[in-house]
Amino acid sequence: MPELRKDPITGRWVIIATDRARRPSDFSREPVITAPPTRFCPFCFGNEQKTPPEVLAYRVNGGANQSGWSLRVIPNKFPVLGIEGDLNRQGDGMFDKMAGIGAHEVIIETPEHTATLSTMGEKQVEDVLWAFRERVLDLKKDHRLLYILLFKNHGEHAGATLEHPHSQLIALPVIPKRVKEELDGAQVYYNFKERCVFCDIVRQESQAGARLVTETERFVVIEPYAARFPFETWIIPKRHDSHFDESGAPDLQNLAWVLRSTLRKLDKTLERPAYNFLVHTAPVQEAAMRHYHWHIEIMPRLTKVAGFEWGTGFYINPTPPEESAQFLREAGLG
Amino acid sequence: MPELRKDPITGRWVIIATDRARRPSDFSREPVITAPPTRFCPFCFGNEQKTPPEVLAYRVNGGANQSGWSLRVIPNKFPVLGIEGDLNRQGDGMFDKMAGIGAHEVIIETPEHTATLSTMGEKQVEDVLWAFRERVLDLKKDHRLLYILLFKNHGEHAGATLEHPHSQLIALPVIPKRVKEELDGAQVYYNFKERCVFCDIVRQESQAGARLVTETERFVVIEPYAARFPFETWIIPKRHDSHFDESGAPDLQNLAWVLRSTLRKLDKTLERPAYNFLVHTAPVQEAAMRHYHWHIEIMPRLTKVAGFEWGTGFYINPTPPEESAQFLREAGLG
Repeated sequence: MPELRKDPITGRWVIIATDRARRPSDFSREPVITAPPTRFCPFCFGNEQKTPPEVLAYRVNGGANQSGWSLRVIPNKFPVLGIEGDLNRQGDGMFDKMAGIGAHEVIIETPEHTATLSTMGEKQVEDVLWAFRERVLDLKKDHRLLYILLFKNHGEHAGATLEHPHSQLIALPVIPKRVKEELDGAQVYYNFKERCVFCDIVRQESQAGARLVTETERFVVIEPYAARFPFETWIIPKRHDSHFDESGAPDLQNLAWVLRSTLRKLDKTLERPAYNFLVHTAPVQEAAMRHYHWHIEIMPRLTKVAGFEWGTGFYINPTPPEESAQFLREAGLG
Repeated sequence: MPELRKDPITGRWVIIATDRARRPSDFSREPVITAPPTRFCPFCFGNEQKTPPEVLAYRVNGGANQSGWSLRVIPNKFPVLGIEGDLNRQGDGMFDKMAGIGAHEVIIETPEHTATLSTMGEKQVEDVLWAFRERVLDLKKDHRLLYILLFKNHGEHAGATLEHPHSQLIALPVIPKRVKEELDGAQVYYNFKERCVFCDIVRQESQAGARLVTETERFVVIEPYAARFPFETWIIPKRHDSHFDESGAPDLQNLAWVLRSTLRKLDKTLERPAYNFLVHTAPVQEAAMRHYHWHIEIMPRLTKVAGFEWGTGFYINPTPPEESAQFLREAGLG
């Protein structure tokens, strides 16, 4: 008999199809293949003049917008939002609109075209996290920007249009709907329990173990109870913090290890799947929140999401998280 | 400058990327090809014994579970929910679960393997709508079932696993999250305006015309103001009704024409795209609602949905709805 499980944060119900559980080998494999560029790559060394000027770079040598960097952040050449102008909120008949003010940046994670976050060195992954933090701290000075999305599309099936390893940042003048829903749900839980729902999840999953993938000094990696997708994986810091950008050096060092190790487990178990990850963090202009707790959600792209799942927010997951957790634990790799 | 537009029902903000608007020819075309079955098809004539026994059929001749039907509704052979047993709501540590009670049915729309809703006759499309209504009226007698999803995945890219034309029904013991959000949003609008938001949309879009695709005696077809996807298309009845199953014969006759004509326009403009549609209707156990208005949402699958869009509910649409509406109007076909 399948089970209906409720996500304790958003209240979303998910069907966990326990009867016809799908194992890693049941998913059609379309591994993300890395290979040297066969055509012009704007993110490789020597092509710095072909991108908008960098807003941040970590470099071994060379000057701004020259080769010699180890990580580079640039505005997206085709941004979905622009930083100049006024928000100009206004009506449009019965509707509401505003100008598309915001920032859209690309974090070029390494000069190595064929690297991935699981194959590059731990220090390099840590630098990506430092770049995330630095860009958030800079952009939040602009008080028009209420939310900053940090995310990665890995592989064409996950929406990546360029192969060279990169993540993205989108800074918005509004709070996205799902973010607000998560904040509101966490507030409802806090009002009832006077505890943070994520802190409770960390405690319970660490003790129970069935959905635990890894635990380190500072983080737990779990398959969530009401996972929407097979092998959906969350990385949650043990210390309560609502904002990712509050993380210090020991946090980011440990997170680099945890993120890389988790992606390596997924790569090994699912044969280098396409995936998305998204940093869930509190709105940048708001003070520390007792009810919200930043974390990272990783979604491997193994199944086609049917239209009714989009339309309803009601997901059918053919792989119980207890089983995917076991596969990932057995993958080893620390 | 791109525009941020707000959906007046859910409050969801969408980026409409007006600067780099994408035309129909800009999307990678993977037309849904129809062809006679190359292997066993459980939905074709003669294979009635290979499916679970029918729960409804319209037939020209033959007895139950024999050939001679023109439309057939069967329980899904691999249901995601089962109809037998108790809900058995219970805690699981800090989490909540219940048994996967519900119904999962398949509406086999026609015996013709290569037909589609745009190529079959209008009467046949009408019969599909009658079957939707009949199954809802039957299933709502089971008071455990709070919501009934009626939807179609057309083409492999939209999640269809069998080619033979069919739609699906999932009856649930919970109200899906996005449905609740739509109901709540419509209630907030009603509280403020004392008018139904959908009635307002029908009036405004019919008068303004920029996002109008077709208008008939009983329906308007529009590209919504804050469309999440290129060529997202809504069919809204002009008469206020919260429940789809309240529709009578003149409604369903007119809807059959409108649905078929809309799918034909999409087929012509986008070269037979994969698509999903979903009937948005009020929870079956609830009385008529003044603030909610049933409708159909059609989502052609033209772009890959990036992970951050799932994770945030924040969509980037590269085709302004005013442009897609114009393309669809120019497609003609009534």
